[in-house]
Amino acid sequence: MENKIIKAGIIGATGYAGAELFRLLYSHKNVEIAAVSSTSFEGKALNEVYPALTNEKEYILTDMDGVIEKSEVIFAALPHGLSEELAAKCDGKGKVLIDLGADFRLTSEEKYTKWYGLEYKHPALHEKALYCLPEINREKIASVDIIANPGCYPTSIALGLMPAIKNGLVSTDSIIIDSKSGVTGAGRGLSQTTHYPDNNEAFSAYKAGLHRHTPEIEQTLSMFAGKDVKVTFVPHLLPVNRGILSTIYVKTDKTLDEIYDVYSKAYENEKFVRLQPKGSFANIKNVRCSNYCDISLHYDSHTSTLIITSAIDNMVKGAAGQAIQNMNIRFGFAEDEGLNILAPSF
Amino acid sequence: MENKIIKAGIIGATGYAGAELFRLLYSHKNVEIAAVSSTSFEGKALNEVYPALTNEKEYILTDMDGVIEKSEVIFAALPHGLSEELAAKCDGKGKVLIDLGADFRLTSEEKYTKWYGLEYKHPALHEKALYCLPEINREKIASVDIIANPGCYPTSIALGLMPAIKNGLVSTDSIIIDSKSGVTGAGRGLSQTTHYPDNNEAFSAYKAGLHRHTPEIEQTLSMFAGKDVKVTFVPHLLPVNRGILSTIYVKTDKTLDEIYDVYSKAYENEKFVRLQPKGSFANIKNVRCSNYCDISLHYDSHTSTLIITSAIDNMVKGAAGQAIQNMNIRFGFAEDEGLNILAPSF
Amino acid sequence: MENKIIKAGIIGATGYAGAELFRLLYSHKNVEIAAVSSTSFEGKALNEVYPALTNEKEYILTDMDGVIEKSEVIFAALPHGLSEELAAKCDGKGKVLIDLGADFRLTSEEKYTKWYGLEYKHPALHEKALYCLPEINREKIASVDIIANPGCYPTSIALGLMPAIKNGLVSTDSIIIDSKSGVTGAGRGLSQTTHYPDNNEAFSAYKAGLHRHTPEIEQTLSMFAGKDVKVTFVPHLLPVNRGILSTIYVKTDKTLDEIYDVYSKAYENEKFVRLQPKGSFANIKNVRCSNYCDISLHYDSHTSTLIITSAIDNMVKGAAGQAIQNMNIRFGFAEDEGLNILAPSF
Amino acid sequence: MENKIIKAGIIGATGYAGAELFRLLYSHKNVEIAAVSSTSFEGKALNEVYPALTNEKEYILTDMDGVIEKSEVIFAALPHGLSEELAAKCDGKGKVLIDLGADFRLTSEEKYTKWYGLEYKHPALHEKALYCLPEINREKIASVDIIANPGCYPTSIALGLMPAIKNGLVSTDSIIIDSKSGVTGAGRGLSQTTHYPDNNEAFSAYKAGLHRHTPEIEQTLSMFAGKDVKVTFVPHLLPVNRGILSTIYVKTDKTLDEIYDVYSKAYENEKFVRLQPKGSFANIKNVRCSNYCDISLHYDSHTSTLIITSAIDNMVKGAAGQAIQNMNIRFGFAEDEGLNILAPSF
Repeated sequence: MENKIIKAGIIGATGYAGAELFRLLYSHKNVEIAAVSSTSFEGKALNEVYPALTNEKEYILTDMDGVIEKSEVIFAALPHGLSEELAAKCDGKGKVLIDLGADFRLTSEEKYTKWYGLEYKHPALHEKALYCLPEINREKIASVDIIANPGCYPTSIALGLMPAIKNGLVSTDSIIIDSKSGVTGAGRGLSQTTHYPDNNEAFSAYKAGLHRHTPEIEQTLSMFAGKDVKVTFVPHLLPVNRGILSTIYVKTDKTLDEIYDVYSKAYENEKFVRLQPKGSFANIKNVRCSNYCDISLHYDSHTSTLIITSAIDNMVKGAAGQAIQNMNIRFGFAEDEGLNILAPSF
Repeated sequence: MENKIIKAGIIGATGYAGAELFRLLYSHKNVEIAAVSSTSFEGKALNEVYPALTNEKEYILTDMDGVIEKSEVIFAALPHGLSEELAAKCDGKGKVLIDLGADFRLTSEEKYTKWYGLEYKHPALHEKALYCLPEINREKIASVDIIANPGCYPTSIALGLMPAIKNGLVSTDSIIIDSKSGVTGAGRGLSQTTHYPDNNEAFSAYKAGLHRHTPEIEQTLSMFAGKDVKVTFVPHLLPVNRGILSTIYVKTDKTLDEIYDVYSKAYENEKFVRLQPKGSFANIKNVRCSNYCDISLHYDSHTSTLIITSAIDNMVKGAAGQAIQNMNIRFGFAEDEGLNILAPSF
Repeated sequence: MENKIIKAGIIGATGYAGAELFRLLYSHKNVEIAAVSSTSFEGKALNEVYPALTNEKEYILTDMDGVIEKSEVIFAALPHGLSEELAAKCDGKGKVLIDLGADFRLTSEEKYTKWYGLEYKHPALHEKALYCLPEINREKIASVDIIANPGCYPTSIALGLMPAIKNGLVSTDSIIIDSKSGVTGAGRGLSQTTHYPDNNEAFSAYKAGLHRHTPEIEQTLSMFAGKDVKVTFVPHLLPVNRGILSTIYVKTDKTLDEIYDVYSKAYENEKFVRLQPKGSFANIKNVRCSNYCDISLHYDSHTSTLIITSAIDNMVKGAAGQAIQNMNIRFGFAEDEGLNILAPSF
Repeated sequence: MENKIIKAGIIGATGYAGAELFRLLYSHKNVEIAAVSSTSFEGKALNEVYPALTNEKEYILTDMDGVIEKSEVIFAALPHGLSEELAAKCDGKGKVLIDLGADFRLTSEEKYTKWYGLEYKHPALHEKALYCLPEINREKIASVDIIANPGCYPTSIALGLMPAIKNGLVSTDSIIIDSKSGVTGAGRGLSQTTHYPDNNEAFSAYKAGLHRHTPEIEQTLSMFAGKDVKVTFVPHLLPVNRGILSTIYVKTDKTLDEIYDVYSKAYENEKFVRLQPKGSFANIKNVRCSNYCDISLHYDSHTSTLIITSAIDNMVKGAAGQAIQNMNIRFGFAEDEGLNILAPSF
């Protein structure tokens, strides 16, 4: 498959996730960007909105239907609630849809309704869709046509906890997750919170216990545990552009060495997960603009608490990069094609 | 006492805490800055090191003895292990020592030795010293001559938890504290971690479970609880200059309303503690350069977890400001003199 | 006058300049903040908009008339074009108006119309108004009832060039001014440019040759020179909250020593202008949150060019602080009352 | 040449330019990184110093000779004064040396001595060396074995001024260059100026008229003009990691349209130079981590001044990227191989 070239389209190309998809796909040797769309900027060139994306070719922003028609694989970076209809339009046309939104992530309609206030309009499509996090279920991705790309916080947390929970090394009774995200996580839309002088030199929690990623996190951890898992999840807004660091607290009766060995084995063949040396700390700067997830393990012996820190770039492994990784698997490309990028250290 | 003026000296005036003391004392109407010292810059003028501190008068940096001689109140901002000798020099001379270091904070010599690797050389001085956090033990401060000024993290945590623990509203079995500090907390000394390009757009945990403020935190919380309390404490380094936000997780069987009422009453007469409206989040930007501690309370009902966030400026309420507050109490000045400052919002 | 207390009001208190006025006036011993107004947030409390301004007293945002009625001195921090009407309302009522907007800055109606697109509606009020920059015309300020507070860029530039031009030390033929401002200069209103991820780690010029402060700068420099002076003025947006640094290039046939001596004498009695030692550079960090203007002089001998750098806090000496300095002069208070504040160095 | 793979080595791989070379060469399909060296960290793995560079393979830091032996092309990222000896070692061995330092940039030994305090030890090597800026002298690069890679500021300035000066559109009598650089320009070494709290929220000029890039800038501009050109060059330190913006002021009697047309033609085939649309401003954020140079042109008609702003990433087009571009030309690879990267917009 090394030289095959497919046509890719981006719906919602002027949002941050859409722009990041463009940036990464631009250097992907198996992809031709066939079409890009935007509701807000239809008719304009993409680089009028993002001058950084100026290159030899001009990409005029079209509408959703234009993208569907021209593309074999369609990336959707839309506000929640819009992807179901899009999936219905793609259905039966031999298209692959990779959805970066929330519509197909939750397998429980009840929870979807509770957290997003919407109902499934096309239940059959949800049967076809799969929550695709390559390090969890790579083998199933190759045959799916509606790929639900995980959320940013849930990605950092699932990778941080998978070996511990799957192997029964920790208690799942009282998991505390304190996450911190860069401001791009809030998107391109303007708000007082993300106004530069309000956010610079600032730091606070938000939506404590109420963030919509909570059911997605619990769904994945419950799958690992084989039983219902609840978490306390508190996100914070960091004054940086990119990056998520999740600090995860779990009780354990194992030693750090035992746990470290299990993680080492679990991730030894995972290119994009880098277990940090003992004593080192995962840092968002080391994954910025890259698809890596860096994980570090520490142990507080006087309270028998395992402290996991997991760092990703929210726009890459937490969004566009993982979507491309899923595409690579789905189409049989090298899994790291277009993603073989090291983070700038500074 | 309103018009009395005392002579104050700063030992270690070129460290960050020392420079902050100078900045705040400069505007204090009951204080004349009589002398400043620095080991590294002795003989230079203070404003050669900090041009921002340039004013009508020149302050030549002298040595420790010069400060002791000229001052009625001596602020010491020194690396740990040096204040005991300093206290010995001040003892019996009618001087008041306000120590911003760790030497007199721990009442257990055993813990001091375990965490700092040093022994008490002058046990009698430790008997005379008091850990002074005004909101906890204001009434005792007026008669103490060796004031141990609390650490920055411990201040944010003690104020965040005091009403809950003192009133038995929460379990003390499994307290998780996830703290984030601005870079001034690491001091003026150079290090790779605090080199601008390494720290900008970066974020990570450090010293997880191993930070020296842990025994100080536990000492204070144990006092509140009337029994031994252990905590899991993980600090992180924020890419901002100033500010600490501590996010504290405790189990409770009370409602948020009950807890909120107790906090309201506990702090209704405390000028420098501002309980945030329900639903709002404490933010370091709202306390920057001020002596306030902002506290917010949230509740995750599906895990019965109280989430307390507590924000201070690590250099003010976490160091120099609290030291001045202690001085004001000790000398009978208005408690907020020199500290009646609102944070710039931007 | 030391103990006199006057009633002050702020119109436009929820904009950045208005909020900064509140912050500084809060600590001013001769001022009682009698009323605050806001068009956008009328009826709310000021600290709902700016939690940092929470203090013992609640300040409900009223309307313009409410402020005029209750106040002896009225600070107006409004979009341009609104202050003339306000001045008309105040006229003849014994009120002092300190206008932080542009309406009364230009003495040429022609230029006001050219740059702001508006005409004078009350020419007589313009006769009564004075452009008040204390270091230039302190003695006239005491008797003025409509004080036009200078713009931020113009303040940094006027103070940077005054001694050189007044004393004929430099050519006024080809003055180049390259200014850089923190983001608060753009105000509280939302825009894509000031969205955090767009502005963080970014830097560019804007409005090159077209900024509305150009005629104000030229008006002041022409007054110094006693003839028409034109400048090339290019502002840039810095990824910091506060601060303006203007780098000014002028040709000279004098030596640096000669020029330095003139500046030394010109500013030796000016508390808020600090000429930096030879070889040192003015830095916005040393004036942040303070009313100082730091000026440094360097000389490029191989092109006979004097390089002046002038640093202020755009919100203080460039807006609210200078307004208070003007008020202090107008009412006979100590000129530095409420402004006797050193910048935090970090 | 598309599939040829050459062995490349990096001397000084743990400095910022060296690390950036590694990052970019890692994704270059015609390059195998054969060896890396470091004086400070010899014997350690590169990713112990830069965890972000962790990948499938371990790179142990060796010494200079080890790199020379194993490599066909050698990138030297050393303090000035060390590359001459290195060139002597490489000479006659069929190696290509790409020097990112200053040793071979100045063609006048007199100026080299004046500005760097050193003399040529191997004059013959200077005859063999060429100052290689592809957009200026691409055709000569293919046959050179000692490539002097331009400095960061000079690159931004040469590209900004080339069409104007070469075509005689502007006066060369009084060129003012006001440049601003991110902190990586100061390197990995620690200093108070680059300590995070000292540099964050700070901004100042430095080395006004005295920066060592001045003779390099003048050498290139003189070549364009065919006569001696002097400039006033003042660099400033920006609180960002990466990026240089040079704002250049030149007098002209041409219209903006005429000048814009000349620039359009001059750069229409230059992939890495992007002339911005009229009215737009070059911004460092649009070139970050990329090899682009964005140039914008504005005109102040009332002073007949052309205002050129030129933005590059100092670590890429200003160092490592340009070095790779030079390598690509020298070895006949696609000129943009390894550099076909768009900047993240946020």
